[in-house]
Amino acid sequence: MPTMSKRSLFLAGGAALLAAALPVATRAQAQSVKNRALFQVTDNDPARWNMILNNMQNLREGVAGEPVEIALVAYGPGVNMLKGDSPVKQRIAEALKSGVKVNACQNTMNGMGLKAADMLPEIGYVPSGVVEVMRKQQQGWAYIRS
Amino acid sequence: MPTMSKRSLFLAGGAALLAAALPVATRAQAQSVKNRALFQVTDNDPARWNMILNNMQNLREGVAGEPVEIALVAYGPGVNMLKGDSPVKQRIAEALKSGVKVNACQNTMNGMGLKAADMLPEIGYVPSGVVEVMRKQQQGWAYIRS
Amino acid sequence: MPTMSKRSLFLAGGAALLAAALPVATRAQAQSVKNRALFQVTDNDPARWNMILNNMQNLREGVAGEPVEIALVAYGPGVNMLKGDSPVKQRIAEALKSGVKVNACQNTMNGMGLKAADMLPEIGYVPSGVVEVMRKQQQGWAYIRS
Repeated sequence: MPTMSKRSLFLAGGAALLAAALPVATRAQAQSVKNRALFQVTDNDPARWNMILNNMQNLREGVAGEPVEIALVAYGPGVNMLKGDSPVKQRIAEALKSGVKVNACQNTMNGMGLKAADMLPEIGYVPSGVVEVMRKQQQGWAYIRS
Repeated sequence: MPTMSKRSLFLAGGAALLAAALPVATRAQAQSVKNRALFQVTDNDPARWNMILNNMQNLREGVAGEPVEIALVAYGPGVNMLKGDSPVKQRIAEALKSGVKVNACQNTMNGMGLKAADMLPEIGYVPSGVVEVMRKQQQGWAYIRS
Repeated sequence: MPTMSKRSLFLAGGAALLAAALPVATRAQAQSVKNRALFQVTDNDPARWNMILNNMQNLREGVAGEPVEIALVAYGPGVNMLKGDSPVKQRIAEALKSGVKVNACQNTMNGMGLKAADMLPEIGYVPSGVVEVMRKQQQGWAYIRS
């Protein structure tokens, strides 16, 4: 037994180290295989928004039966398209209804003097659009700059 | 021995758990170190296409002796540049010859009433450009939106 | 004891295999949780540069007390904004002072006949902007194409 025991002890020590690291590795992997895509929109241009809204619909339909999480974050000039009088408000309502998360950057809104009351109903908010873009990628979301 | 044995058993149990998770972590890592880049092109603009074709060549040359996989996916207005009469068809032929994979989005083609016969020879097709962009990132490809 | 010992030996063998693979998985994870963002700039447009410089500042402030590494790589027409007479040179100096790394693509500079003496002081250089974009993503940096 002595030889085997020393071996077990040695290797088990390695396993303890591994056990500490594993939850993290497992979580990273679990994230990387999910269908999750973040669309960044920084343009104030209805044609581009319509293209992006088409893209989001194509993504949802293109994965067929698979679950997919789709989010859009607007910052900079892109925030204009989420105002109450947005020329694409009907399509944004449809996207929200289909489960897409649509968020406006509060940093940008502050800079433009916009409040939630000025914006489309049912959209969400993030403190900073650019921080959101970094965080979501860190969490394994695909990034799409249309 | 009893103390050590209990310890081995405890830790070995952790190792069994780890063994189940490992192939996955190893695969994720293997992917992340490969040189693989996907260029997304959604613009119908020869100047931008020429820049992207330059970028792909610079990428191939910039990794010198290392293997590198380079793919381009065109969707939305970008698909126009892959039609048979494309103003950049000569350069696309060169890119294909150098090993770059060039794919057009079939979703977009359907919307524009385009068939394979209307397109440049030797290009490939993907059902959905935006799904391709998400999938490739999930598989560890770098994403380049030029 | 024999049963337990065989079990330990078996599992410990698995652990040895795991131990060989782990440093890699751990490194990948360590990378993925850091706040690191690379901004790609390929436009020669002061308005867009000002937006990107704002975005970088918002990112730095938006993570509050957390450490964050921010880098910018300019290539193609974007390199013009890093020349000595850049209309955004004051803001680039401020970004550099705040810790942002600003790099120009030497491939592009060669194509435009530019030398370091023509460029803003204190910026850095990378052999190829597009290679830099791929490498940083491989290393776990978030990618932001503003």
